[in-house]
Amino acid sequence: MCDQRGFTLWFTGLSGSGKTAIAKQVERELRRRGLKVERLDGDIVRQALTRDLGFTKEDRDKNIERVTFVAKLLTRNGVAVLCSFISPYRERRAKTRREIGTFIEVYVECPLEVCAQRDVKGLYAKAFAGEIENFTGVSDPYEPPENPEIVCRTAEERLEESAGKVLAYLEEHGYIPV
Amino acid sequence: MCDQRGFTLWFTGLSGSGKTAIAKQVERELRRRGLKVERLDGDIVRQALTRDLGFTKEDRDKNIERVTFVAKLLTRNGVAVLCSFISPYRERRAKTRREIGTFIEVYVECPLEVCAQRDVKGLYAKAFAGEIENFTGVSDPYEPPENPEIVCRTAEERLEESAGKVLAYLEEHGYIPV
Repeated sequence: MCDQRGFTLWFTGLSGSGKTAIAKQVERELRRRGLKVERLDGDIVRQALTRDLGFTKEDRDKNIERVTFVAKLLTRNGVAVLCSFISPYRERRAKTRREIGTFIEVYVECPLEVCAQRDVKGLYAKAFAGEIENFTGVSDPYEPPENPEIVCRTAEERLEESAGKVLAYLEEHGYIPV
Repeated sequence: MCDQRGFTLWFTGLSGSGKTAIAKQVERELRRRGLKVERLDGDIVRQALTRDLGFTKEDRDKNIERVTFVAKLLTRNGVAVLCSFISPYRERRAKTRREIGTFIEVYVECPLEVCAQRDVKGLYAKAFAGEIENFTGVSDPYEPPENPEIVCRTAEERLEESAGKVLAYLEEHGYIPV
């Protein structure tokens, strides 16, 4: 690929909604097609970039601010960037969109009950027991996107369908070759 | 450029040694040649990435740790990255070299007296007056590189000569087309 077009796919949604699973699936397919890809999530950036941050609104916003800086630089250099972060605050996401420019918001929608039932990391149980503070959806707000480019409904769709939606969007809008 | 090779040029040296001046000159020339370039320095990363950090050894190392993460991602995606940071600690620079891989250390060497005489930002006067703590070269150590790929001696060379050395190195080692 000589002239790959940079963009950031921004996966937002509750903990356990399936953001990273979809991002990984899309990443695999983009790599298969020979594209330059970087995937960022909390686990990836924590060590080098955000180790000092907790889960208050201020810290969550700082977390996203740092990730935004990285995604912006990669995007303007022709990389496909896949970010999956709860990123619960609408205003911070809007700022990220303005800063990155080529920004595609993917709302990974899944009812809280379903996320809590999955409870992949055992965090909901702790949050309901009051053992974790500032837990999005339980003791902290989640502000859903108002006009996301893509909505994945992971309680109803299979992973392949959700990833397929994202890839179809990228093809239809000329971000990646068909 | 279809197949630009990513690398990080790491300019280290005292405050006022001329790191950023050389980096800007090299940046201009690389852009003129149509290459993808990102330049990072304290002013550029402070707002989004390192606003919370001061000048203790711990904070300086954290600063470089975050910048290293960004430079690593850009480098492996084919970008020419130009970093100018005092980065006084040898061990932290060695770690950055290992993490980035394609890493070219440029020691911007200039005697402390000359840097202090230039005193572009008025910081040396304050440091000598004891108004600034942890000032590299005055009240904090600077550990010079032992085996830098390139040495620029800015007390003796003109800016064009220093930048020319860097460009010649990049050409000779196949990082950029001649």
